[in-house]
Amino acid sequence: MFDLESYLDSKRMLINTHLDKILQNPSNSSRLMEAIHYSLMANGKRLRPVLCIAAAEVVGGQTEEVLKAACALEMIHTYSLIHDDLPAMDDDDVRRGKPTCHIAFDEASAILAGDALLTLAFQLLSAVEISNGSQAVTWLRIIHRIADAAGYRGMIAGQMKDIASETRLLSMEELEELHALKTGALIEASIYSGASLGGGRQEQIDQLGIYAKKIGLAFQIKDDILNVEGDPALLGKAVGTDKMRQKNTYPYLMGLEKSKSFAEALVTSALQAIEPFNRRADPLRAIANYIVQRNR
Amino acid sequence: MFDLESYLDSKRMLINTHLDKILQNPSNSSRLMEAIHYSLMANGKRLRPVLCIAAAEVVGGQTEEVLKAACALEMIHTYSLIHDDLPAMDDDDVRRGKPTCHIAFDEASAILAGDALLTLAFQLLSAVEISNGSQAVTWLRIIHRIADAAGYRGMIAGQMKDIASETRLLSMEELEELHALKTGALIEASIYSGASLGGGRQEQIDQLGIYAKKIGLAFQIKDDILNVEGDPALLGKAVGTDKMRQKNTYPYLMGLEKSKSFAEALVTSALQAIEPFNRRADPLRAIANYIVQRNR
Repeated sequence: MFDLESYLDSKRMLINTHLDKILQNPSNSSRLMEAIHYSLMANGKRLRPVLCIAAAEVVGGQTEEVLKAACALEMIHTYSLIHDDLPAMDDDDVRRGKPTCHIAFDEASAILAGDALLTLAFQLLSAVEISNGSQAVTWLRIIHRIADAAGYRGMIAGQMKDIASETRLLSMEELEELHALKTGALIEASIYSGASLGGGRQEQIDQLGIYAKKIGLAFQIKDDILNVEGDPALLGKAVGTDKMRQKNTYPYLMGLEKSKSFAEALVTSALQAIEPFNRRADPLRAIANYIVQRNR
Repeated sequence: MFDLESYLDSKRMLINTHLDKILQNPSNSSRLMEAIHYSLMANGKRLRPVLCIAAAEVVGGQTEEVLKAACALEMIHTYSLIHDDLPAMDDDDVRRGKPTCHIAFDEASAILAGDALLTLAFQLLSAVEISNGSQAVTWLRIIHRIADAAGYRGMIAGQMKDIASETRLLSMEELEELHALKTGALIEASIYSGASLGGGRQEQIDQLGIYAKKIGLAFQIKDDILNVEGDPALLGKAVGTDKMRQKNTYPYLMGLEKSKSFAEALVTSALQAIEPFNRRADPLRAIANYIVQRNR
């Protein structure tokens, strides 16, 4: 029987150790580095880097090969949280159980810490010691895919749509597109990076891509559900905020129970997409179930 | 006799055409794209991309080979201007002769437009069609160098120091370090990218690196001088703001006349560094002189 909890614990420890090592530069004892460290080393789920590593393992890759990409993905995710929390955006005070970056430091430091994390992610992705040219081409493709997912056609487009949609009711299609951009794109890029660096064949990468798309949306629906009925102490952030802001969410548009069954159905589809894989895909299977069962 | 004005005009037109083409995606008629277009296509000097192209030409490279890198550098520069202008940072209302991005749009759009430009720069740098692996390695090195120059050890560190130094007097060494980080690093990376993609030998790249360091600092000193005695109509931004904010500047720390001779001396050193090059370096020579003679 696969033990997800100890799997997540060991991968998170690996990721946190590596992230901490990247930030451990003696010349960087500045306020900027403090703000970066504060947000990056907070108690996050590390979902994206874990997915990246798990996808590499499925296709026979090693954790070490993808650790840099995994850390870069977490940096991009953290930068997006810091900027989304800013007063000009969602104006949130609590994140990962602590005051948000602009509250703990100040707005200028939070903007720059986000900028620095985004930039550092690409520095990390390009810092690979290349033994052969074809590996360099793989890394360039991954940088391109991650930039695409994080950029104006992906995560940032999603955040813009999210802000714009606070004043009007979205259709189900529009809400799904919003989430595909805001959360889905980077989750898909995480799976793609792991599978691709792990040496996966195109058909394997494609199947994992379907898995990623399904769990990405399920993850966001569960996030919406937790904002209704979650425990703020466990979540490390406030609940009821979506309703307060009249945000378009799945529970709001289709009701709480239907949202839950939709998320379950997505997980079932995700599991089907990776059915052909052997037991090396057990972590991904367990993660898919965890995504809808989690309480944080 | 080399005609700098027509050289700059033709390169700027090339850069602007290429930037405009990158943004011309029919699916992107959103407010985010409007904000990106507004700031990126404003009337900028295009110094960094021009330096990138000119450095490539010196070592025998072609403009086409470096156009993507040149455009990516301008995107990173523009993102830094958008974020620096934000109310939480320098709180500037006018840039490149127009209202700043957060004034013309809103703060959230300006933050996201900056984020998107930074991300798009790396997407562009990794979007190269690679004919061979060694070229892929060159592009990875350039991505790494640019990310380093733009990041927490470069431009962003400079902006943090700039904000922190508004409350105290800097030493000359501290001011030089601040400028080396805030402006110098990306100018050096521009020259490095062009020389490297153009196929320059290590010794050529090194000499051009000295040139870049000198003109980078001269450029910033001239910027400080223009903030004292420039014409806001020509500059496209307000003057006298450094004094108002009690900013540490060269004119403030060493006086206006000494600042001018220091900038001149730096240009002389820059010209010495590229003396061994043939007439293909004439654009770089003219640009060095232009940097201290310009009135915008």
